[in-house]
Amino acid sequence: MTYCVGMMLDRGLVLMSDTRTNSGVDNISVFRKMFHWSVPGERIVAVLTAGNLATTQSVVSQLEERNKAPSERQNSLLEAPTMFQVATVVGDVLRDTIASRASNNGQAAASTFSASMIVAGQIEGMEPRLFLVYPEGNFIEASFDTPFFQIGETKYGRPILIRGYDRDMSFESAVKLLMLSFDSTLKANLSVGLPLDLLVIERDGLEPLHERRIDGGNRYFQTVSAGWGEALKKAFLSLPEYAFDEQARSPSQ
Amino acid sequence: MTYCVGMMLDRGLVLMSDTRTNSGVDNISVFRKMFHWSVPGERIVAVLTAGNLATTQSVVSQLEERNKAPSERQNSLLEAPTMFQVATVVGDVLRDTIASRASNNGQAAASTFSASMIVAGQIEGMEPRLFLVYPEGNFIEASFDTPFFQIGETKYGRPILIRGYDRDMSFESAVKLLMLSFDSTLKANLSVGLPLDLLVIERDGLEPLHERRIDGGNRYFQTVSAGWGEALKKAFLSLPEYAFDEQARSPSQ
Repeated sequence: MTYCVGMMLDRGLVLMSDTRTNSGVDNISVFRKMFHWSVPGERIVAVLTAGNLATTQSVVSQLEERNKAPSERQNSLLEAPTMFQVATVVGDVLRDTIASRASNNGQAAASTFSASMIVAGQIEGMEPRLFLVYPEGNFIEASFDTPFFQIGETKYGRPILIRGYDRDMSFESAVKLLMLSFDSTLKANLSVGLPLDLLVIERDGLEPLHERRIDGGNRYFQTVSAGWGEALKKAFLSLPEYAFDEQARSPSQ
Repeated sequence: MTYCVGMMLDRGLVLMSDTRTNSGVDNISVFRKMFHWSVPGERIVAVLTAGNLATTQSVVSQLEERNKAPSERQNSLLEAPTMFQVATVVGDVLRDTIASRASNNGQAAASTFSASMIVAGQIEGMEPRLFLVYPEGNFIEASFDTPFFQIGETKYGRPILIRGYDRDMSFESAVKLLMLSFDSTLKANLSVGLPLDLLVIERDGLEPLHERRIDGGNRYFQTVSAGWGEALKKAFLSLPEYAFDEQARSPSQ
């Protein structure tokens, strides 16, 4: 499986992805699922991927035109005039890749080759944008009503995101929140694994503000992971205790 | 969907279930998913159900022999000599019910009629036991390595259970923990809904110690649900902040 989150803040965008891929529980590997391209001062575009690895790698290769000689390559993500068109290009390539694999494999269902992606970035003079691209090539855009998108194993890490998110939080707090969301997911689903990739894009920065690979030896991640258990315990104890007797007198009963 | 949890403590068993059923998002209803039978001083048996409602209702009716006149009914759960045999009976009836529905409906997959159940209880002179019964009729038993079972929408509420569980916790704390787990699930999945059913079975009590239906007007649930957001916020703030600079100096990078 996979877990990736793209989050929109007033300050910009924060993206995190895991790196574990698996074909059965007895065949796990580490692959990058976060990609970004930038023309400093003009644009930055990032893509997070979940789903069939052959599909997602193929999509990224096609976007970079790796079938051509290096000198002849043109990255269409760096030429699209708006982020909306960037998302359109990603969606079209994704849909066509899945469809061609399915049509070349007789009975195999398109779902075998399915994948979804988060597209995030900003182009000079326009707002930062965040999209969720479906296997069918269509996509939706985040707003502050729904300010983050998750792909892959989304459920374990969702409650803490819902409770902890605040649009005016600092990048540092957002990274902490994402680490807790990933930690909950890592603890519950073996097919999501370290290391994590982190990318912070500041509004109008138009290049990566901060980029890091977080592995098991990362001391901050260790501190947050270990400390959260203790902090939750205290939070739990701070709530009043259930009482059998009071319940019996409760007017709602 | 559904969310049910059966939890084993040193003190006994705590069970909680939601009551929402749905056939599409435009057709939701309230149905009980927790059932229990007891012969005070001799045994108590409880069953929690998830999956196809016609299947689970049919299983419960068959266990109670509702096809017979009331005076002739014998509840096989009250006659099985051990909890292991109780679980076997439930599993057999469940498997046969699913199989007969599938075979009577031509192309319809057995998964359409699938269901799973948690079986919990104690018989005099023996230990309290907790089982998870699969649609195939086989089952597994909880131990203190894996002291709780969830069925239905299990993921959103799992991280807090993993972090908060303690085998020697009080019943009151366990109820609080379950309420938080249910609250996280209710907030994330519309197909899990109030009211909740709660049953507490004390070791060697051999009858319900505490039983309650918790609806939206329950003041304790409201307090815990509202207080948890604030408590989590404090817990989140108590953890150290991520620092872009220190990361750059981290030996792991």
